[in-house]
Amino acid sequence: MRPSNGVRTFSAQDTQVAFPLGGIGTGNVSVGARGDLRDWEIFNRPGKGAMLPNTFFALRTKIGNNLAVARVLEGPVQPPHNLSHGYHPWTAMGLPRFAEATFRGEYPFARVDFADDALPVHVQLEAFTPFVPLDPDKSGLPCAIFTYTLVNLSSEVVQLTIAGSLFNAVGGVAFDAFGNIAAGGLGLNINDLREEADLRGLHLRSEQYAPGSLLYGDMSLATTHPNVTVKQAWLRGAWYDFLQEFWDDFSADGLLTDLGYSSPSDIGKSDTCTLGLVDTLAPGEQKAYPFLLTWFFPNRTNSWDNNPGAPLVRNHYAGQFSSSWDIARYLVGHLPSLEADTRRFHAALFGSTLPDYVLDALSANIVPVRSTTCFWLEDGRFFGFEGCFDKAGCCEGNCTHVWSYAQTLAYLFPSLEREMRRIEFIVETEPSGYMYFRTHQTFGSRFVWGWGDREPEAAVDGQMGSILRVYREWLLSGDRAWLEAVWPGVKRAIAYAATRWDTDRDNVLDGRQHNTYDIDFYGPNPLCTVYYLAALRAVEELAHIMSEPELAQRARAAFDAGSRRADELLWNGEYFVQRLDDVNAYKYQHGDGCLSDQLLGQLYARLLGLGDLLPEEHVRSAVGSVFAHNFKRDFRDHVNCQRTYVLNDEAGLLLCTWPRGGRPSLPFVYSDEVWTGIEYQVAAHLIYEGLMEEGLQIVKAVRDRHDGVRRNPWDEVECGHHYARSMSSWALLLALSGFHYDAALGSIAFAPAVQKDAFRCFFSAGTGWGSFGQQSEQDMLSASLTLGYGHLELQRFGLQPAWVARTVRANINGKPLPARLEHSDGGAQIGFEQPLKLIAGDRLEVALTRLSTNES
Amino acid sequence: MRPSNGVRTFSAQDTQVAFPLGGIGTGNVSVGARGDLRDWEIFNRPGKGAMLPNTFFALRTKIGNNLAVARVLEGPVQPPHNLSHGYHPWTAMGLPRFAEATFRGEYPFARVDFADDALPVHVQLEAFTPFVPLDPDKSGLPCAIFTYTLVNLSSEVVQLTIAGSLFNAVGGVAFDAFGNIAAGGLGLNINDLREEADLRGLHLRSEQYAPGSLLYGDMSLATTHPNVTVKQAWLRGAWYDFLQEFWDDFSADGLLTDLGYSSPSDIGKSDTCTLGLVDTLAPGEQKAYPFLLTWFFPNRTNSWDNNPGAPLVRNHYAGQFSSSWDIARYLVGHLPSLEADTRRFHAALFGSTLPDYVLDALSANIVPVRSTTCFWLEDGRFFGFEGCFDKAGCCEGNCTHVWSYAQTLAYLFPSLEREMRRIEFIVETEPSGYMYFRTHQTFGSRFVWGWGDREPEAAVDGQMGSILRVYREWLLSGDRAWLEAVWPGVKRAIAYAATRWDTDRDNVLDGRQHNTYDIDFYGPNPLCTVYYLAALRAVEELAHIMSEPELAQRARAAFDAGSRRADELLWNGEYFVQRLDDVNAYKYQHGDGCLSDQLLGQLYARLLGLGDLLPEEHVRSAVGSVFAHNFKRDFRDHVNCQRTYVLNDEAGLLLCTWPRGGRPSLPFVYSDEVWTGIEYQVAAHLIYEGLMEEGLQIVKAVRDRHDGVRRNPWDEVECGHHYARSMSSWALLLALSGFHYDAALGSIAFAPAVQKDAFRCFFSAGTGWGSFGQQSEQDMLSASLTLGYGHLELQRFGLQPAWVARTVRANINGKPLPARLEHSDGGAQIGFEQPLKLIAGDRLEVALTRLSTNES
Repeated sequence: MRPSNGVRTFSAQDTQVAFPLGGIGTGNVSVGARGDLRDWEIFNRPGKGAMLPNTFFALRTKIGNNLAVARVLEGPVQPPHNLSHGYHPWTAMGLPRFAEATFRGEYPFARVDFADDALPVHVQLEAFTPFVPLDPDKSGLPCAIFTYTLVNLSSEVVQLTIAGSLFNAVGGVAFDAFGNIAAGGLGLNINDLREEADLRGLHLRSEQYAPGSLLYGDMSLATTHPNVTVKQAWLRGAWYDFLQEFWDDFSADGLLTDLGYSSPSDIGKSDTCTLGLVDTLAPGEQKAYPFLLTWFFPNRTNSWDNNPGAPLVRNHYAGQFSSSWDIARYLVGHLPSLEADTRRFHAALFGSTLPDYVLDALSANIVPVRSTTCFWLEDGRFFGFEGCFDKAGCCEGNCTHVWSYAQTLAYLFPSLEREMRRIEFIVETEPSGYMYFRTHQTFGSRFVWGWGDREPEAAVDGQMGSILRVYREWLLSGDRAWLEAVWPGVKRAIAYAATRWDTDRDNVLDGRQHNTYDIDFYGPNPLCTVYYLAALRAVEELAHIMSEPELAQRARAAFDAGSRRADELLWNGEYFVQRLDDVNAYKYQHGDGCLSDQLLGQLYARLLGLGDLLPEEHVRSAVGSVFAHNFKRDFRDHVNCQRTYVLNDEAGLLLCTWPRGGRPSLPFVYSDEVWTGIEYQVAAHLIYEGLMEEGLQIVKAVRDRHDGVRRNPWDEVECGHHYARSMSSWALLLALSGFHYDAALGSIAFAPAVQKDAFRCFFSAGTGWGSFGQQSEQDMLSASLTLGYGHLELQRFGLQPAWVARTVRANINGKPLPARLEHSDGGAQIGFEQPLKLIAGDRLEVALTRLSTNES
Repeated sequence: MRPSNGVRTFSAQDTQVAFPLGGIGTGNVSVGARGDLRDWEIFNRPGKGAMLPNTFFALRTKIGNNLAVARVLEGPVQPPHNLSHGYHPWTAMGLPRFAEATFRGEYPFARVDFADDALPVHVQLEAFTPFVPLDPDKSGLPCAIFTYTLVNLSSEVVQLTIAGSLFNAVGGVAFDAFGNIAAGGLGLNINDLREEADLRGLHLRSEQYAPGSLLYGDMSLATTHPNVTVKQAWLRGAWYDFLQEFWDDFSADGLLTDLGYSSPSDIGKSDTCTLGLVDTLAPGEQKAYPFLLTWFFPNRTNSWDNNPGAPLVRNHYAGQFSSSWDIARYLVGHLPSLEADTRRFHAALFGSTLPDYVLDALSANIVPVRSTTCFWLEDGRFFGFEGCFDKAGCCEGNCTHVWSYAQTLAYLFPSLEREMRRIEFIVETEPSGYMYFRTHQTFGSRFVWGWGDREPEAAVDGQMGSILRVYREWLLSGDRAWLEAVWPGVKRAIAYAATRWDTDRDNVLDGRQHNTYDIDFYGPNPLCTVYYLAALRAVEELAHIMSEPELAQRARAAFDAGSRRADELLWNGEYFVQRLDDVNAYKYQHGDGCLSDQLLGQLYARLLGLGDLLPEEHVRSAVGSVFAHNFKRDFRDHVNCQRTYVLNDEAGLLLCTWPRGGRPSLPFVYSDEVWTGIEYQVAAHLIYEGLMEEGLQIVKAVRDRHDGVRRNPWDEVECGHHYARSMSSWALLLALSGFHYDAALGSIAFAPAVQKDAFRCFFSAGTGWGSFGQQSEQDMLSASLTLGYGHLELQRFGLQPAWVARTVRANINGKPLPARLEHSDGGAQIGFEQPLKLIAGDRLEVALTRLSTNES
């Protein structure tokens, strides 16, 4: 079914497919499996199900004097057809369309192949928005590029017009009960035809709103194709005249008649416009026809709740461009290089030897970064919701306990993560070390979790996670100025944990411990304490870096004592449990339950090279127990009185089970649920602990559930769409490749956990990204690092041969490079005499050979 | 696939199935293919998609000391699973449920078979609301009866509890963005346990609303089963405690623990309650477990737009009952006879020899009568929308031009149709003969169809249709007092047509002719003129009855002249067309198009025995042309810029085509659409004209489209759900059986158009209904009339042998009955010496024998 290392294809029947285009902080429009445009979310708010009227691509072909054929460039409409008034004409569902559409998505590229025997051409759409890891600006353009490539399959010349129609939605479209377009904020809309040397198209704007208005903005549909035909405004008639006139005009001769309206639309109304690309194709000829869709809606409310009365802020992109036409013009000059970088990223990620479902999990969960879950302000501040309701952000404020699971953004856009740490430790951490876990200091409102007027508890896991993430950001950046800025907050935050939550001062947390399950744990429990132990280790390392040896020592001492005490208290012989005399004394505990998140802190320690937080064999046993007890291959008999994410014959990992009994009468909310963000963190941890098969099974189960019929492969839902926690999937790449990087030390290391004989994967290391490869024969291990983008300064390169290495050889772009084996126990570390400075396109190769003895 | 004369079965995958329970004017709750309760519409407004939290049936079984098994009594949840926050706990989607559900709907009975290997029983649900044609009161009870029949498949005794849970929604339930239950109008809700001799259960009410309040009302869930267990209110806890506590309690021992709340719910909150039926089943034993669901929401707004500020009126049922418990109590006494009558109706309708898809079309389109499309007030007034939006009625006021297509209500509940005619001709027809086609006189508001402030045009087709329907209602009732009351209005209405629309006085209408396509036709056109000709004929007949021979003569003269003139003007050699010098001089005409509705007036003449309105051979050719040109077997190449109801590889009948060219640039809106109400009227007319195969093909196409995956088989949509025009399907029964009835003359006649050798069908004739059967051998035709309900006075019985009859014999309930052949040319008419008075259960048999000559 799935081609190896390929990614699934989808047909028109896979109605849940919605592949989001759009940049960081720009909003999105998605492509469906039929090639349709859906979920218009470019107006600074989520819009699942939001359609734009009259907005579709269409193709007309004609050979000689044969009848012309015109088709909407979409696959067949799928059931159910259950609307109370049928499909409204603005959906164009009544127009003929292609017989088949085949969709393939390899983020950031979507491809749709259209087939229909009635047309003499094959049509392929490729759609994307430039995506260049490490460069948020290049990845944050409010645009989508649609390229239709046509091949003339006939033996005669084909005349063709490809037309893109777009509704001018500036001001905001609404619909009445019949589905007719209602006033909304529409009115005084006008579509200008603009032609420049290499760019021509339509600029859709409104004269109703001033630049400072929330509703101000514009959209453009443009092309670099030289020969165009244009209708600036569809017929302003009654009933369904608009579509009838357009389709008759288009299908008659492929040339559009402009109706000559010179005034903007009336208040409450707007116009649709069409840009057609006109050409002929010789027999067998293939040509690409590009459309540039750009948008510019600069203003959004500075509010987590989309309150229209709140003060406005400007999107990051609004500081760089003045209009959507300005963006289109920028693209004309820069698209070739943006596209080349984007293709290099795609090739590096999908050119991997990793299993297809792993690539799927990695790439699909880049989406939250560029979805409406995140936004990015003109002043550089970057924020995320937890996820999104259909029409609004859901659960505000860089929620620390959710975002702590996320790894994707940190490795792809580390500057944005450093910005989030800056906000957490400089703005959101009080002198006491109490950290607002939802950036409520920033926005001036305090979120209270339904518990009356009290200040919410700080979140233990979120606060510890933020400390760990400071260390992660440091490793990836070596940015000392930034570290110095956040460091005082880090010290206060860890001190707060020790005093507030460790009430008996035994270095195991036991107080009231608010956490990501939106409840409070009481007493010693693995989630909070292991997270705390990991944070102590991070503080120890950071203290060394900050030349505070006394603090480092204290942190170490607390860690050592806490680690011993935690193992004594929490280990049940198989996994770690919560210790409470009466598990029902408080609601929503887990007690003897086997918690999937029990070792999340230990996973962080693996990711960041912080070592074992608890006895290694206990860790391995516990992670294995999580898989053994919590991974269910079938949910038909599962009893879940909470929210349901997995059901029927699907497989998934439960948040908690009670294999030895002791289930509380009301266990913590969410305990019987399945969250992809936790599935990925457990899968990555299983891989780190050598339980490869188990880890991969979980990943495959998650992605099998997102099959286009049941769920959208590009939307992992938890408490909202594009849920931030799902970005834990990037840990899979780190675990499978054994990637470690320390910018300050100039060291990079890989230790593939699979396919060691022939391994290839993407890596991203702070200032550069590219592809790592490894080939292993009996006595030789050759590895290569190809930099696709940016630069990378290296002094050390670590590899993990199955034996003790004897010699090393290295070259850069084929040129020999002096290198030495710094040590070869427990992995080989190669040192370079001069710090290497790789730039994009460089290829570093090293080869290790084995000792002549029989050691291995 | 489909068993002959059986009706389709559906599986859980058929997600569009929603079979409405509920009476005339009571609202509905529907059963889905999974056996789930959906679309709660009992609160005096439509509610497609409206769910009640925590409302489901569940079963627990236990054998000896084996583990108990508990399951929600529903089939598996179907994809997509695309909610932003998963399924909320109040949906209970996370609980185990049956592996399979098989649904079968034969209106008014729904049946669901549940299968699961984990349980030792087979479970079958039968759900219905009493339905007794000719008795609107018996068919207008706000209740649904759910009977679960269990068979113990094991060899051991099974202990069981079947529990129905119901949310107290009095006041109105709402949901917040997370799907949590929000305040709405809830509060001070309380669920009383009530036990009486033969009835016990829960009465769900609220102390917040006075009897005169729009939100006042109550619901009951009761049973006649002796042994019950009850939880009056689920746990009033936090988070998802409610479901956890209920399910744990239920599945632990099958006995429910009442939590002892003594006060009503807080303002903004409500409670769920559960009624469990406890029993044991011996090996092989089968038993039925009944639940009675009743509701009482007496008040609705006297407004077509659900304006909550409008004055209130009371539902018809509110005049007969005082509460839902009162209704439950009534059912205990009356259900046996109500159920017996309902089963007799079902047996008469589905025991027919007609093709399954015809039975499907007849029965499924009874639904609009009992859907939220219609309502019935305490003062006896009966009204219908055109159809329904998901949450509101759509297009108000007994719309004459839509309802004129409907036949179902007239034959099943003729008193309600007479009431509609009363409103039309006594309230809504002005002295000028202008008829408000949306009962705007009744409701004091004037609907203006988007054309500024002008009085809307009267609708030609609606006004003529109402005249024809007066004649239909007269034939079915012979109600002279009623006819005398409406007759003056009828005379004014036909005179208005002659003066207003026949501007050149040639008896062919040519003025501005507003009609059911929501536009105005200009000039001579078949829809309006043929309707007018039919109305003239009806007036002629009525004038004779009213002893106004001069009027009868004038009507006849106008008809004769108009018929000749229409044929001269409109006949194009193949079908009838609109005559306009320039078809584009006015927008939205049809000109040379072949209109599916061109002979709707002639169909009425067939239904009512008014004869040929135009040359017989022209009629037959035109109806055949409609099929030949307008019935499309595939819509993939169809260009439709209007609303889309049929698509892809489906088949359907277009409203108009232009086989000879001449399509206007903007033809009338809806011309490229497909409406089931028109498909049925054309199908019936094809059958009348002898084009049997063609007529049946159309019917099959409609019902094939309503397959449970694409559309709900019990909801034919046009401009709204449960669209009134779809009730034209009853004309199929009239055409196929050749049914004619004249109450005043005491004559009934049948002339089966299919299966003449062995024919059986349902009939309904004003005061009684039952089953007609005919057996034909070479020289003998035997027929029977079995009265299932009511009474029927007969003086004449018409049959249609294929030959000239020689002798007749008759008996009633086996007792010989004197009868004579009154004439036998063009069908045999049998006269009885004494007027026969059949009562329910009577069976009349007649046998004709053939002339001994070779005539046929």
